[in-house]
Formats: sequence, structure tokens, C-alpha cells
Amino acid sequence: MAGVRPASPDQATLLSELVDRQLLIETGVPGVYGRGEAFEDVRERVASMVTRAAAPEHPEQLRFPPIMPRRDLEKVGYLKSFPHLAGSIFAFAGSEEQAAEQYERACRHEDWSEFQDMSDLVLTPAACYPVYPAIAARGPLPVGGVTIDAGGSYVFRHEPSGDPARLQMFHQREIVRIGEPETVQAWRDVWRDRAVELLGSIGLEVQLEIATDPFFGRRGRMLAASQREQQLKFEILTQITEPDTTAVASFNYHQDHFAGAYGIRLADGSDAHTACLGFGLERIAIALFRSHGFEIQAWPAEVRSRLW
Amino acid sequence: MAGVRPASPDQATLLSELVDRQLLIETGVPGVYGRGEAFEDVRERVASMVTRAAAPEHPEQLRFPPIMPRRDLEKVGYLKSFPHLAGSIFAFAGSEEQAAEQYERACRHEDWSEFQDMSDLVLTPAACYPVYPAIAARGPLPVGGVTIDAGGSYVFRHEPSGDPARLQMFHQREIVRIGEPETVQAWRDVWRDRAVELLGSIGLEVQLEIATDPFFGRRGRMLAASQREQQLKFEILTQITEPDTTAVASFNYHQDHFAGAYGIRLADGSDAHTACLGFGLERIAIALFRSHGFEIQAWPAEVRSRLW
Repeated sequence: MAGVRPASPDQATLLSELVDRQLLIETGVPGVYGRGEAFEDVRERVASMVTRAAAPEHPEQLRFPPIMPRRDLEKVGYLKSFPHLAGSIFAFAGSEEQAAEQYERACRHEDWSEFQDMSDLVLTPAACYPVYPAIAARGPLPVGGVTIDAGGSYVFRHEPSGDPARLQMFHQREIVRIGEPETVQAWRDVWRDRAVELLGSIGLEVQLEIATDPFFGRRGRMLAASQREQQLKFEILTQITEPDTTAVASFNYHQDHFAGAYGIRLADGSDAHTACLGFGLERIAIALFRSHGFEIQAWPAEVRSRLW
Repeated sequence: MAGVRPASPDQATLLSELVDRQLLIETGVPGVYGRGEAFEDVRERVASMVTRAAAPEHPEQLRFPPIMPRRDLEKVGYLKSFPHLAGSIFAFAGSEEQAAEQYERACRHEDWSEFQDMSDLVLTPAACYPVYPAIAARGPLPVGGVTIDAGGSYVFRHEPSGDPARLQMFHQREIVRIGEPETVQAWRDVWRDRAVELLGSIGLEVQLEIATDPFFGRRGRMLAASQREQQLKFEILTQITEPDTTAVASFNYHQDHFAGAYGIRLADGSDAHTACLGFGLERIAIALFRSHGFEIQAWPAEVRSRLW
């Protein structure tokens, strides 16, 4: 399995502080934590702030579980770009004798993988992924397209790390715009600037940057260069820990990538374009605790009034 | 892989109705659905009703993601009782060449399982499972034990079915009691009766029954018989569809099963006992739509006032 990315000294300090205050609860696996009451309160308040900011657009509310059909992931080429991050779900379909052997090995914490077969499900890698096939199934879009609020689903990335801001499973607060190319691009650009303002209003020092996805391998470097050149991805960054900044929100213009894969058509029959925005709720919560301290009651009044 | 359990005619009708009204959104995999706005509203209101009922106990709020360490599942013997329901998470750790081959096969919807290795994570099978190791890690319990509200986590059961009330991934609204044996049993019994009243108050016709878990295989029949004889599990059942009733809540006394596996001790050093209760939020939401109709505004005023 992939190794664990070690924490910087500052990241290790922050993780200890979050655990000591029962904001995060360790499970024994890096990047997989429980959440204490105050942490969840902040996370939900940040999510609500985004909901309020989106309300004037009256997005349609759709929610999806953190698993999705394997076939949909295959269709959209996720395994070309991010094979290292994907999680697939396996299950048992053997005999009683095999079940007994599997159990014996599991008790000894030995390898029982041979008794597990690939299922038709994978973990959802981004909260917007299940939205596209669901919209495609409805037939051609109305003029002006649709805006879908996908809520704050749990998503999975297989990248174990000692950095508390790099989780294997986290809530991504996503909104998706599907329609004509210029409509979708304009929406992405408006939200990019709105989000800088939103995150600034809760006391985070942020900057907007052209960004790239963490594509896999040598071919990935070419994909990243092309993505950067076309300015398809922007991220909002903040300094949670030394030494590097962390992305807390991203704004992505997919052109016809998803629409082409799933068959989302405009009224005239051509492929729609799509864009999405995602706020990393745990990262924003952690950034707030680091900026304003571990006692929510002591946070600046202005920040509290924006969130509560 | 396990076959899909076929729907009864009545279950198939109900699923069509839920999909036509965009309460559930099909993904192509039985038992895995998106949720429309009205469905989520009802689901969240039912969850809040449980929260209000638990408020006098001041349970500690802890939340966990829908994945957990494989080691914790191994420790507690889940694979002895329910190997057929478990989901394990696999991931890729190969070379660029292997990634390319994996991608090619995935594009053709062929088998790419050989490139996936078992990770140290599994899907959470019940919302209370991550609670026990977290409480064990704190050391001996205070006198009187603890009550933990684990929220309404997504949990996984690998049992594809055409019945819309039998999902592979659903929200389990769970509360856990950990402490002295008599304390824990009394708590389970109080909640058992309270839950019958709660569900009756929103217009569901329910009955309480001694129940058993769906243990695997021949040995499972013995486990079930012993569980029934000791009255360790109760379920609240309602008739959602013909021909059978469906469990919508369960009340489980585990004796020292979890505490022994993870080492949860009372103040005197002996093993604690545990009990949990779980409300199946999607099942209750579906039962409400079936009982009161698909238009929430037309539900009986008494039911609406209990929920909204």
C-alpha cells in the first residue's frame, strides 16, 4: 500500500492539539478521524454559510451517498487521472468454509483479501460525480441549464497523511452548474470571487490562485500543464500550518468532460458544459480553529456573528 | 458477487413511485440511490425528532465517517457473524504501466481487480462501531458510564435488493449506552418503549418484537437462537410493502461483546456492558411517504406538527 505522508512538525503539533481538545478523535489510521461536538458545530456552520450564499440562485437540492456505481467512475476516466486516489469496494461471496477461513485470518490480522471480490461500487471521489449521470438521465437541459446543490457529502481520497488537514474521508460542500459554456464559465468566475469574500469574512487570510489537480504519473504532468494553461481550476489557499499553504476551496471548469462522458445535452442537442465549486469543510474548520483559537466562545465577535 | 434480491410486486411499485416523484434518484445499482429535496427534509426531521427525545439525557455528540479501520472490524469478530454484509476498501499502489493497463480495462468495463490491493479501511457496518474503540481509548469509565449520540452516519450493508427499503448505504441514527450491566439494560428497555411511542406519534402503525440479526450460515442459526433466547435484540416493525413487515428501529444489548473486544472498563476494572439503539432513517422516511402520501403538505396536521 501507499506509504503515509509524514506530517511537518507544525502539522504534528496541530494534530495533537486537535486530538487533546477532542475536536478530532483518532482511529489509528492517519487521515480518518471522528469529530467532537464543537468541531461538528463549526463544520455545519460553515456549510450553512455556503447555503445562504447560494440561496439567491435557488439551486435544486440533491444528495448522494458516499458510494457510487463503479461503472460511472469507469466511464468518466477517473482511473486515468487519479488511480492513486481511488477507493474500490470489495465484498465476500464465498462458501461457509471460505467464510470460516477468512474469519480465522482476520482474527490474526493476516491477509484475507483473497476472499474478497470487486463489487459494482466505488467510493465517491468528489461530491459532484453522482450529479452528472443523474442529470443526464433526465434528458436535454432546459435553456439556461441547471444549478444543483449537492450538499456536503463525504468523499474519499486514498492519501494517508499525518497532516490533519489532509483527510482520507472528508466533507466536500459542492455546487454544480450545468448549461451553455459561457453561462457555466461566468458562474464559476462569480463564485470564485464570492468565495474569497466569504472566507475573508470569517477571518481567514486567503489568496486565489490558478491551480492543477494532483494528476498521476508522467502523463499527469502534461494534463496539469494543459489545465493550468487553460485556467480550468482555481483554488483558494490559506496557511493552516508551516511550511505550505492548503487549498480550502476549488472552482473547476470541466468544459464538456462530464457532459460528454454521461451524455448531458443542451436543448439544441450539443454537449453541455459543467463547472463545480467545492469547499473543504474540515479544512476550513481546522483553519478557523488555528486562526481564532480552540475555544469557540473566544472567537472574534464578527466571525461568530457571521457563522452563528 | 451476490445476486440481487428481487422486489415483490408491491416493492417494485413503491420504488417506481419514489423515483417518479424524484424522492429517490436511481444510480443503476440496486439499493444505492440519490435523495431529492423533500426526501431529505423528511429524513432530517425524523433525525431531529430522535435528537429531541434524547436531549434530557445530554448525550455526548460524536460523529464518525462511513469508513473505519479494518483492524477494528477484525477485532470485534464482524466477519464471523456477517461476512456477507461487509464491504472492504481496496486501492491502487502500482506502477505507471499498471495504472495504464488498469485504465484500459476499466474503459472497456472489464475486470481490473488484480490492480487493487486491500487497504487498512473498511466501510462502517453500523454507526455505533467506531464509538467503542474511541471510548476504550479514554480509559476506565466514570461511575454511571457514558451515553454517546453517534448522529446519523451512513452505514454499508452488501445486500443489493429491489426493495427500496433495503438499501446498501443508509443513515442509521444511533445512540449508544456504555456502563454497568443493569444501567445499560434499563436504558435499552426505556428507549424501546419510548421509540414505539415516537413512531406511533408520526402516524406509523408499529409493533415491537424480539428479533435476531441476519447471521451468516449454519453457525449463524445457532447464534440467532441464542440471541433470541436471551432477548438481546428487539426491533420495531411496520408494514411498508406487501408481503412482509420491515424493521425501522432496533434496540440491542451486546453484554460485554464490544467492551471485551476493545477493552472498555468500568471504574472497578471489570468489562463494561454496552447497548445501542438505531433508527433506520430512510426506512422511516419511506414508511411515512407510503402512509401519508407523496405530498408532504397533505400529511395529517398532527404528524406535520410533530416533525416540523
